[in-house]
Amino acid sequence: MGQVKNILFIMCDQLRWDYLSCYGHPHLHTPHIDALAAKGVRFDRCYVQSPVCGASRMSTYTGRYVHSHGASWNFVPLKAGEMTIGDHLRPLGVQTALAGKTHMRADSAGMARLGIDPNSLIGVRISECGFDPYERDDGIHPRSGHDPYPRYNEYLREYGFGGENPWEDWANSALADDGRIVSGWYLKYANRPARVPDEHSETPYITRRAIDFIEEQNADPNGKPWVLHVSYIKPHWPYIVPDPYASMYGPEDFLAPVRSEAERENPHPVYREFMNTKVSRSFARDEVRDSVLPAYMGLIKQIDDQMGVLFKYLEDTGQMEQTMIVFTSDHGDYLGDHWLGEKDLFHEPSVRVPLIIYDPDERADATRGSANQDLVEAIDLMPTFLDVYGGVELPHIIDGRSLRPLLFGQKPADWRSYAISEYDYSFMDIGKVLEKSAIDCWLRMIFDGRYKYILSEGFRPMLFDLQDDPHELTDLGADPDYEKIRGRLHEQLFEWARRPRQRVTVPDGMINSTPIQQRISQQGVLIGFWDEDDLTEERKNWRSLMASWNPVTKDTLAALEKPTDLNSGDDS
Amino acid sequence: MGQVKNILFIMCDQLRWDYLSCYGHPHLHTPHIDALAAKGVRFDRCYVQSPVCGASRMSTYTGRYVHSHGASWNFVPLKAGEMTIGDHLRPLGVQTALAGKTHMRADSAGMARLGIDPNSLIGVRISECGFDPYERDDGIHPRSGHDPYPRYNEYLREYGFGGENPWEDWANSALADDGRIVSGWYLKYANRPARVPDEHSETPYITRRAIDFIEEQNADPNGKPWVLHVSYIKPHWPYIVPDPYASMYGPEDFLAPVRSEAERENPHPVYREFMNTKVSRSFARDEVRDSVLPAYMGLIKQIDDQMGVLFKYLEDTGQMEQTMIVFTSDHGDYLGDHWLGEKDLFHEPSVRVPLIIYDPDERADATRGSANQDLVEAIDLMPTFLDVYGGVELPHIIDGRSLRPLLFGQKPADWRSYAISEYDYSFMDIGKVLEKSAIDCWLRMIFDGRYKYILSEGFRPMLFDLQDDPHELTDLGADPDYEKIRGRLHEQLFEWARRPRQRVTVPDGMINSTPIQQRISQQGVLIGFWDEDDLTEERKNWRSLMASWNPVTKDTLAALEKPTDLNSGDDS
Repeated sequence: MGQVKNILFIMCDQLRWDYLSCYGHPHLHTPHIDALAAKGVRFDRCYVQSPVCGASRMSTYTGRYVHSHGASWNFVPLKAGEMTIGDHLRPLGVQTALAGKTHMRADSAGMARLGIDPNSLIGVRISECGFDPYERDDGIHPRSGHDPYPRYNEYLREYGFGGENPWEDWANSALADDGRIVSGWYLKYANRPARVPDEHSETPYITRRAIDFIEEQNADPNGKPWVLHVSYIKPHWPYIVPDPYASMYGPEDFLAPVRSEAERENPHPVYREFMNTKVSRSFARDEVRDSVLPAYMGLIKQIDDQMGVLFKYLEDTGQMEQTMIVFTSDHGDYLGDHWLGEKDLFHEPSVRVPLIIYDPDERADATRGSANQDLVEAIDLMPTFLDVYGGVELPHIIDGRSLRPLLFGQKPADWRSYAISEYDYSFMDIGKVLEKSAIDCWLRMIFDGRYKYILSEGFRPMLFDLQDDPHELTDLGADPDYEKIRGRLHEQLFEWARRPRQRVTVPDGMINSTPIQQRISQQGVLIGFWDEDDLTEERKNWRSLMASWNPVTKDTLAALEKPTDLNSGDDS
Repeated sequence: MGQVKNILFIMCDQLRWDYLSCYGHPHLHTPHIDALAAKGVRFDRCYVQSPVCGASRMSTYTGRYVHSHGASWNFVPLKAGEMTIGDHLRPLGVQTALAGKTHMRADSAGMARLGIDPNSLIGVRISECGFDPYERDDGIHPRSGHDPYPRYNEYLREYGFGGENPWEDWANSALADDGRIVSGWYLKYANRPARVPDEHSETPYITRRAIDFIEEQNADPNGKPWVLHVSYIKPHWPYIVPDPYASMYGPEDFLAPVRSEAERENPHPVYREFMNTKVSRSFARDEVRDSVLPAYMGLIKQIDDQMGVLFKYLEDTGQMEQTMIVFTSDHGDYLGDHWLGEKDLFHEPSVRVPLIIYDPDERADATRGSANQDLVEAIDLMPTFLDVYGGVELPHIIDGRSLRPLLFGQKPADWRSYAISEYDYSFMDIGKVLEKSAIDCWLRMIFDGRYKYILSEGFRPMLFDLQDDPHELTDLGADPDYEKIRGRLHEQLFEWARRPRQRVTVPDGMINSTPIQQRISQQGVLIGFWDEDDLTEERKNWRSLMASWNPVTKDTLAALEKPTDLNSGDDS
């Protein structure tokens, strides 16, 4: 096999881990993604650091937990200064480009305060969380202009799909039986084909944009190695897909909803309120699932076909041996499981994601086609990329760890024993219903591979035993028999919380390797020295390197050892 | 009384709380500082957020705990982007200037990455932790040029105190009995008068520079309100002071060292190593205390006299009624107590500081001359200043709380029940001796007014009961009788650690007051809506303000409620 030159970092949005055939879906066949898994490693315990787009992605792009970077929900700008994949790889001669979604909100106030022009090269990168935006498209383009007018709209126009907002009118609309155009925003119409034809819909469009980028790089004689983030908006809502995908799946292909009546009896107050949101109440209804699931599954099938297009392109152009391929998602989708819609909480359908990594390096031959059961986190991708390009480890900045040892079949002895995820629900109405101030609207999950403990500010915790209760139907958070287990996980969560990694301006490696007290003394800053003889004596213990490396400080120490004689010297 | 226009924010360096007569020192009379206390409030339980210069100051200047801002030791740059007093007050039309020390190290790497010229106005402010540097002088100027060549050296030259490094040769030197010039770095010579005369020594010099600044402001017809940080390097080492102060105090004036032989028997491993540092071993010796204490006390007496100069100037120029005066320190000095030198740990001589605030506002009349026993923290000053100038509270950024309610005699019901301090000892040789990696070299103190609990990564905690053992001579960290108390404080420390305040780009206030879900829906992003009727029905529940404020989104919603009829419309 080859050596990694480039990285294709593919992310879907809201793709559940269990809606791929390689992860066990019995009816949704995803042969192209399965083929990738057969060539690489399928990670069976990958967790995102927050089950919501923006926060999850900011963690993935920075390699840092939400409590480190602070961008805790969708509208929270990642602060100017937080380092991302692009910032870490650029000094290594690697460009980091984007085709698709990031959910990044620019820190305009921060840039203004720091005097950074948002339209400058640096300003654009800060605004795009470190990526060079080949094409940014967050995929949500309502009439009100929620996101900037996308290039995709111009593209649709070129092909004759016009109107004020072609995305809304074609990609996100369907025809009702009576010939009216109905909106893809409504769950009722999810099972109707989008008005846009497959080839012009978003997933194939983003695939082609990715290939455009790669072609341009190949054509450039000075092209640098690249990490391309191919970031699909789908199968995220609005749930709507063109034919033939719209008509592929019916109720016989569905996974049954995972929920029990017992979950609704005396639930945890925060869970109760999440069950009570509009979207959860919708997904608790069978007619909603019946309407949405065919679209959700069709969108995934379409992605799989586009993976086929992308991988074939790499094969045909001989790039497969030099391209690492990462396939993952930013979080899942409840789809009615646990009486919930959307994501936001920490049940497996929400917080666990598929992660497949194909590494062409021959050292990865040992693990090809295997399934890995180690606890991995989305923040591990950033340090994996750094590792691939030979960057030094940055444990003072990056919370995640390189997955390459796992890809090479060499699990480090000190691999993590728990995965963490956080959720800031202050942005939900739930915070107001529960009368919580913003700083108390936090849930924090710790999962040790068996027990999932969720600390909930101001309420009792939640606890699930995934060994005895793999579907997480029984909350043991108040069960007296589990007090000890809760206590252990609570303490481990504290351990984790004490490592905020904010000392980002001085590396651990420098600290660990520098005799700092000697350097201070050597510069003539003497702390606790009695007299000249004391200095002379102490210097004998210093490392020889330190005691002589700097001619300036050598003189400094010599002068300190010999008091000036006023009668013979020439002190002015 | 008057209304605050300006703030004189005076900080000493390494000044113990108990070396002022208003705090009870029986022999070191500080009448000018005492007079300030008589006009204001003396806080008896003020704690710094880290017992080391750099980290403590960065907390004080940002209003944030060390685990929030990350600048955990002296050589750690405060990261570009962290907001300081200057950044918070500038938009309110207040300038924040510096005369003296900050211990700030500029984040050069961060500025380079963000494209900020360190010599630009913004670059200078980032480099000076938000202050406009009227005069920066960190007071440590060894021959090796540890700090930039100070203006003070030019000043000394003007008055005929020459040489390669006038600070080192005059301010930091003394004469030995045999006429040789000996260095103030050595503890042995601390009891000799500095060669520089009093009027040209550092403390009076900085006082005059502060008055220069104020005079310039008064002369400027467009002068803005100001916060002036008058920041003395003294009584910090090198311990040396000119006459008459050098000869004022002898052993009969000393406070006896607070230490017991029991402390050295089976001590906590981290404490043991701190007792084992060079400076601690020095201060355990009586001859070191005998030599250093006269200088340390003389330096404080000199500061008090300079406070007299400064306060008289304000009185004489009629500025006392419009100037808030804050007097504090960045940490204390063990001076041999507990067999320790320097600071770094959490005994009262190190982590507790004097804090006196004089507020000319008439609402503060209720508390003049009183002593306050509430737990206050150095991070409370930043929000106090913000409060004075009418800024909105920023609980998503600032960990501290305004002290003004306390100054007005109105203690908030939810005032803090514990004070926190942190110490990163990875920069000390101790970390290497204990074979700890940088991320584990952390001590974290929580003090509830009686018990002081110190969590020590990888070791047992320490615990002191300041009610039964006010001198902190008995470490109860392993005493089984105190398990419950340790458990309570441990849990409170976890509570604290879960509030890292990194979501600095979106204010809590905005979140608490905005119906975010409605705004999302209103922009045409419909999550969980079944059909058009569902939207129409749901809109009735929205706040009227939200449902109509934006004409664009009004149209958006209208369009979503009425499907387009292809047969009658004119869809292109």
